[in-house]
Formats: sequence, C-alpha cells, structure tokens
Amino acid sequence: MIVWANGELVEAAALRIAPDDRGFLLGDGVFDTFGVRDGAPLWLDAHLARLRASAAVFGIPVPFTDDEIETAARTLAAGNGVTRGAGRLTLSRGAGQRGLLPPDPARPFALLAVAPAPAPVGPLRVLLSDIVRSSTALSSRWKTLSYIDNVEARRRASIRGCGEALLLNERGEIACASAANVFWIEGETLFTPSLDCGVLAGVTRARLLQIAKSKGVDAREGRFGLDALRTADALFLTNSVAGVVPVASLVGAAGERHFDAAGALAQTLKAAEALP
Amino acid sequence: MIVWANGELVEAAALRIAPDDRGFLLGDGVFDTFGVRDGAPLWLDAHLARLRASAAVFGIPVPFTDDEIETAARTLAAGNGVTRGAGRLTLSRGAGQRGLLPPDPARPFALLAVAPAPAPVGPLRVLLSDIVRSSTALSSRWKTLSYIDNVEARRRASIRGCGEALLLNERGEIACASAANVFWIEGETLFTPSLDCGVLAGVTRARLLQIAKSKGVDAREGRFGLDALRTADALFLTNSVAGVVPVASLVGAAGERHFDAAGALAQTLKAAEALP
Repeated sequence: MIVWANGELVEAAALRIAPDDRGFLLGDGVFDTFGVRDGAPLWLDAHLARLRASAAVFGIPVPFTDDEIETAARTLAAGNGVTRGAGRLTLSRGAGQRGLLPPDPARPFALLAVAPAPAPVGPLRVLLSDIVRSSTALSSRWKTLSYIDNVEARRRASIRGCGEALLLNERGEIACASAANVFWIEGETLFTPSLDCGVLAGVTRARLLQIAKSKGVDAREGRFGLDALRTADALFLTNSVAGVVPVASLVGAAGERHFDAAGALAQTLKAAEALP
Repeated sequence: MIVWANGELVEAAALRIAPDDRGFLLGDGVFDTFGVRDGAPLWLDAHLARLRASAAVFGIPVPFTDDEIETAARTLAAGNGVTRGAGRLTLSRGAGQRGLLPPDPARPFALLAVAPAPAPVGPLRVLLSDIVRSSTALSSRWKTLSYIDNVEARRRASIRGCGEALLLNERGEIACASAANVFWIEGETLFTPSLDCGVLAGVTRARLLQIAKSKGVDAREGRFGLDALRTADALFLTNSVAGVVPVASLVGAAGERHFDAAGALAQTLKAAEALP
C-alpha cells in the first residue's frame, strides 16, 4: 500500500516514524478521517477546515495546501485500487526534545493513508459506557491523537458484544459514541447533543442538521440526559466513513432497549444524506 | 544514544516505528518516567507497578519483567554515560488494523530511553491554566500516551513566561500541574488534591505523603477550590524527575500571587524527600 508522507509517495511497509515523534510519545497531534467514493475524497474541504482548526488550537503548523491533499488522496485511491474506502490524514507535531514543551519551531510530520473500508454495517447494538466523556477537555472538542478514552470505550463495548459505545459526560448528558455523533428522533423532531456536551463537530453531523433544517424538520441541538432516549423512536450514529448507522438497541444496566430503525423520518434522513 | 526496544539494545537513530502503531495514531498506550541517580533507576518498583496498573486498565499486555527493565535501565545509563537523568518507559499497544477496536491479541511495542536531565530549576512561575482538567477521563487518572491536554497547558504557560501550569478540574477544584502533582502548606498543615480530583497517582506524591505522616505532619488529601491557595504559605510541585520544586508565584487573571518557598516546613519536606 502506498501512503503520502510529508509530500512524498512511499510504500507503507518502508515508512518508519522516529521514536522521538511527539505523536507517538504524547498523542501530540491531530487527525481527520474522510470517506472515499468512486476514488475521490468526500467533503474534503470540510475535513481539512476542521483539521486546520484543530491544529491551530494546539499551535501545530500545517505544512500542506488543500490542493496537495486532494491530489494525494486521489493518487493514493488510484494507486491502491480503492473506490470505496476511507482516508486518514494524521498531523503529528513531529520530533522534539524530552518533556512536554513543544519544540519551536516544530517540524510536523504529516501522513495520509487511503484504504478500503467495509460497507456500513446493519443496525448496531450499542453499550451504555461506564467511561465518562469530558465536556471540557480539548481532546473532546478537537480531533487529536490523544484518543485512548475513545479506544477504551470501544474495547469495553466489544467485550460486551456491542459494536459501539454511548458516552455520557460528567453532568450525565448524552455526548457521543466512541467514533461517531449521536442523533435520535421522537415523533417528527430530530435531536442531537450540542457541542458543549463534549462533542466533536462532526462533518456528517453538520450536514445532517443542515439537510434536516432545509427539509423543514424540527432539529434541536441541546443538553439532554439519558431520559431523553426513553421515549425516542429511533437512535442513530453518524460519522464520515460509515455515514448514518441506525442503532438496533442500547444495552444498559437496566437491560436492553430496542429502537425502531425503520421509522419514516429516519429513512428520509438516511436517504437524504447522500452516502451510498 | 542507545535505547531498549522490545528487549533489544539499538541506536536510537536507527530505530523506527511502524506508521500503523496505535501509540502514534491513537495515543493508545501508557508510559512511566523515573529518575536516574548515580546510574541507577530510582523507585523503579513503584513506577513499574503503576505502569502495569495503567496497562491493565486498557487491556495492554506487558511483555517484560521488572528485572529486565532494571537491567536495561542500568545498561542504558552506563552506555549513554548518564549519572543524573531520567528514564522513560513507553508501552504502545503496537500495530493494528484501521479503526479504534484494538487488535486481539495485541503485539505491544515497548521502548525504554535513559537520558540526562537538567538539575531541578529554581522556584517556578506557574500560570493558572484556562485548560480544565477532567476528573473523570481515564487519561487523567492513568499515565497514558494521550497527553495533548497536558502539552497544551504547558505550551500556554510558556507563552505567558511561566514554567508550569496549574489546572483546575470541571468542578473548579485544584487538580495538578501539566507534569507534576501539587502540594501546599498553610501553617503546619500539608495539603494536596485527592486522586478523585482528576490526579495522577504520582510516585513522589505518595512518598511525600508517607514521609510527612511519618514525621507527624498533618497531611490532608481532599477537594479544594482555588480559595485554598489564598491563605497558603507555600506552594510546590512534585514529580519523579525534578523531585520537589517550589512555586515562586501563581499568575492568574487577578494578578500574580507570590509564595514563600523558604518556609520551615517546606524546607523540611524538601530535605526529607531524599532527592539530591
């Protein structure tokens, strides 16, 4: 498989990272993940805008243009024979001296990979996680390399036979899944947690809200406790690789709550979000 | 410089890490840092116990014995000519497939480095950080590779001319510095935040509490707001590399508050903690 590293196309098997890279030692970097359809990146502008915003928060220089990434993504998709897949752009702050203080200037390391991704799975069993999402951590609000709380939420879900995890924040409000935003429908109203719940500003999340509003759907962002799901008709997850994924059931301490993934509004949104 | 990687001694300049290492991509791993004095690791048992506890939380296998690490640390100190310095043991979950779900079984990657460290600096200016420590995140309670919130706290402190940052948690309680625990003294009483404030269980923190109690000092762990520092006589930071470091002043929105680093109890504790 070919990857793109700091502007060069190289065989992944031949590429190696320095042991003093701060991405490796301190999770000190950002990334973004986008869908690939028909060999082209989907909504790349939005993903690169988010990556640039994330990098700016942490003072990490971005050593490439959007056009370079667009070209590289298409080249990798063609070279690796990927029509449907996912791209991941990783931007580490690069190598540095011992300790937390970043080198100045930083010599960031950028890595772009495009790989096949399986078609979206069917409705998911989701575990109500015992891992508490921080509403305040920078690593909750921005897409950084410091992802271990998310990894652990997914791992614990898998141990319990679930494909994803639903995380609440420290105030008990619904936040997100380990690698997805969360939406639910009650009657004719669409709900999703507001960003101040400790939520990543998902590209698919923003698109879905926009589509819903353009169709005259009452779409509400806010702070909601778990009680909100008690009367919900449908629950689903969104991210840029899988699109809109319905939740079949939520597994909690009090048992398993099933949702109707076939509701009319859910189907409309699924059809509208333009992912195959 | 020689490092130890998965049981082999290698030149750091020749060592490279796979681009699909989950430490690099997801901050998916743990580490520990210990002092080196006279070419030997300090309190290595306590550090390895903490690293094993951290790894167990995340289900990461630990592919070495304590004796192997002890021997490797001494060999690296001798080979690299380090008498006074610091060791860092990094344990990544290793390479994996795309996505958050860990590979099973994992093939972890362990890296030990021993390098010179500067002698402790004098009393520090410390910035009251605008970064909020999560009291609930696993990455607050365990020493993981997902460290970007700490990195950013240190970076912002440096921009303001400060050597460290003081972080409060989401309840406004004093938590810790970016890479140190926090203690203060009022009268004859020693205070430090309890672990449930979102605090790493520092090895030096535990030793200092033990020493204080053995000397009959009233040492209190608890939840304290910033108000507690208004009447404090001395404030200091502890970690395993620098030992006990006094705080000269705390820079906040309302100005700069100076502390007396030369108080009698502070000096006693500094002398007692057995770091040169």
